[in-house]
Amino acid sequence: MRFFSRDIRTMDELFVHDLRDIYHVERHNLHALSLFSEQATDPGLKAAFEHHLVETRNHLRRVELVFAMHDARTNLIDVPAIDGSAQENGEVAGRINDKRVFDAALIAAVQAVEHYEIARYGTLVSWCRLLGRNDCANVLQKNLEEAKAADHKLTNIAESKVNVEATLLA
Amino acid sequence: MRFFSRDIRTMDELFVHDLRDIYHVERHNLHALSLFSEQATDPGLKAAFEHHLVETRNHLRRVELVFAMHDARTNLIDVPAIDGSAQENGEVAGRINDKRVFDAALIAAVQAVEHYEIARYGTLVSWCRLLGRNDCANVLQKNLEEAKAADHKLTNIAESKVNVEATLLA
Repeated sequence: MRFFSRDIRTMDELFVHDLRDIYHVERHNLHALSLFSEQATDPGLKAAFEHHLVETRNHLRRVELVFAMHDARTNLIDVPAIDGSAQENGEVAGRINDKRVFDAALIAAVQAVEHYEIARYGTLVSWCRLLGRNDCANVLQKNLEEAKAADHKLTNIAESKVNVEATLLA
Repeated sequence: MRFFSRDIRTMDELFVHDLRDIYHVERHNLHALSLFSEQATDPGLKAAFEHHLVETRNHLRRVELVFAMHDARTNLIDVPAIDGSAQENGEVAGRINDKRVFDAALIAAVQAVEHYEIARYGTLVSWCRLLGRNDCANVLQKNLEEAKAADHKLTNIAESKVNVEATLLA
């Protein structure tokens, strides 16, 4: 069992904690999307992952900008949820025997992370506005919109092609 | 390092794996919502968690129904992402020094799980339809809609009351 001091006293401090959480997640995404864009078989999916990798670099810069605007440090923290997600994805990937089913599983894995981002950025934007920091909210809102757009784009690729081809195997 | 046999050969087998994933998550949610509805301070938030606890019992029954309709077993599997999420929530909760900030953190934690559900059920419904199982898709669609509704309801409670009161502390 680990013990912690009661160091989160205000919404501002809770905001900084959750900003560190999403910072860890975006750093993780850089690594994951880089790997997935190599592993994906479908050319359209590979291109979508590569495009979102570029967006993710911008996400990281925007989060770092908000740290600077808010005069807070980027201290790295553990995010067991996202580390657990990576562990599970690796295990499932190792069990899949067909490259089209593998593509479908990659899409599902990335969409789960996009929804983690949608939840976190939604919360962070809302908290910023309440804290009177519309400037920070506007920066994080861009990441929120791109996470939603990436999720929709992956649904389209899945439903129009990847999942259809994977299902025809059965 | 763990080794796995390549036992996921078709979309049908990937579907059953992800159905087991969400089954674990819903069982986890029963425990988490039961705890959070005791811990929440705001009466409206407490009531919302209690209401969603009842919905979660129905989610579990629907997932069990789909296992039966699909003639698949409910084998329990590990979902490190959700176990990691629980670990992080527990650690953050232990660091918060104010009951209103604590309520805001509980909302953020539950919304992250709701988005995990939205991602997973969205994928499962899509896969069911492709596999020609509209009957299973229709059952899981109900869980998807309830997860989205729970997320919106929590945003409303947060933005109309809980987060506002927590921010006034600063």
